Amino acid sequence: MSDNRPIGIFDSGIGGLTVARAIKQLLPEEQLIYFGDTAHFPYGDKEKKSIQNYSKRISKFLIQQNCKAIVIACNTASAASASMLRKELGEQIPLIDVISPVVQFIKENFKTKKIGVIATKGTTHSRVYPKLIHQADDSIEVHTSATPLLAPMIEEGFFNNQISRSIIASYLAKNNLRGIDALVLGCTHYPIIAGEIEEYYQSLKQKTAIINSAQVVAEHIQTELTRRKLLSDHLTSDHQFYISDWTNSFEKSSEIFFGRAIKLQKKGLWK
Amino acid sequence: MSDNRPIGIFDSGIGGLTVARAIKQLLPEEQLIYFGDTAHFPYGDKEKKSIQNYSKRISKFLIQQNCKAIVIACNTASAASASMLRKELGEQIPLIDVISPVVQFIKENFKTKKIGVIATKGTTHSRVYPKLIHQADDSIEVHTSATPLLAPMIEEGFFNNQISRSIIASYLAKNNLRGIDALVLGCTHYPIIAGEIEEYYQSLKQKTAIINSAQVVAEHIQTELTRRKLLSDHLTSDHQFYISDWTNSFEKSSEIFFGRAIKLQKKGLWK
Repeated sequence: MSDNRPIGIFDSGIGGLTVARAIKQLLPEEQLIYFGDTAHFPYGDKEKKSIQNYSKRISKFLIQQNCKAIVIACNTASAASASMLRKELGEQIPLIDVISPVVQFIKENFKTKKIGVIATKGTTHSRVYPKLIHQADDSIEVHTSATPLLAPMIEEGFFNNQISRSIIASYLAKNNLRGIDALVLGCTHYPIIAGEIEEYYQSLKQKTAIINSAQVVAEHIQTELTRRKLLSDHLTSDHQFYISDWTNSFEKSSEIFFGRAIKLQKKGLWK
Repeated sequence: MSDNRPIGIFDSGIGGLTVARAIKQLLPEEQLIYFGDTAHFPYGDKEKKSIQNYSKRISKFLIQQNCKAIVIACNTASAASASMLRKELGEQIPLIDVISPVVQFIKENFKTKKIGVIATKGTTHSRVYPKLIHQADDSIEVHTSATPLLAPMIEEGFFNNQISRSIIASYLAKNNLRGIDALVLGCTHYPIIAGEIEEYYQSLKQKTAIINSAQVVAEHIQTELTRRKLLSDHLTSDHQFYISDWTNSFEKSSEIFFGRAIKLQKKGLWK
């Protein structure tokens, strides 16, 4: 049995395309419909209630597009809207956020270990990772560190060079991240610099696992769709990429995140 | 004759404190009342109409505080709201924005020369600098370049180090900024790195003047208050610093911009 309807994915911008990319690589038969709410980017500054309203409206749009599952490919929206949307959408449609699968993965693999989390200021201040990880297993030590320059640095194309290596090193050398067993990339932009982060730890000869949430989420989706018998058996249509506000720079940056040039279509859900 | 009422200054955040600092240094007898609209930061993403509404509300507040002059210490708000506010406030109260004094300065000093402007994406896309400079004197060649990583870099405390030098060099080496006679720092954050920018041009043995808008604006205010006989003869009260949304990180960063630790008070102009 198969289900060839698309998977809907949304984010406050185009950073969530790293999650779309990871899904495409793991599940090449799945059609993706992506929505980036660039009109309201970044969500980090917004009130919880506003983010919930945006998430609800976007999910409605994705369901209208006949999506069989919804992926919240944004840490801020996952923290603000996941439980609300789960209630709203009911059990029929799987809703996958970017935080719970990572928490589950940590619980299964890093009992009694020391975990670092790097994220935007908003995600760090929300303390969503320490809270959920401790709820899952309080033997795990969690240290979060805000690394607000990394997302604009990546958007600006500064990666795989001396600048990005210096910025990454100066963030990861902070006291509270010393001696961690694993580092969670707590922002959908960060998979782009996963390799550089790995090199940083290799240069220190330190064994630190990099938990790439895009990868973990893609694997979780595979498990979930398999369990519910919702996997597609072949790609029926092209992937679709919508954004709520179009500028040239979004189209240029989208290649960084998705790994290849894509056509972004403007879809004004708000007048 | 003197007028000891305060000068009101506003910005979308705390970057405009560089302008407040330049005014304080040039005019130490003037009391300052600063308003940073951190609840709506950054203005760069917002609609013109919203920025105009914010600017109007803040100006009203500053006038209620008995301010004798209003300074828009923000490039985005200057572009969006200066003419509207000038009409609104009338001739009685001087309104100084951060763009017009710079345009005037360029007109007087750089006839037929080649000028570079670095700014945020919003200011760059608005093309406000080329438009106004060409209106003032079309013999001047203007090249603008968006340098969006500089503001978060400064806010994060990455300046006067190897990282900031590399980022600055990689932006200033761009083709359209080659061989300029002067560089306008078109964002109120940038005076913090004026010294590093100067060093960059010195290392190239290139004679490029740095136009620090905070400095130019402070001098313009001095001229304007002198002309209108509105200068203060002594400091009557402490400076006041209001922001519309308070977080710890604003207070920490404010020292970077104002040059010394200050107490930020929350003032919710919006419910």
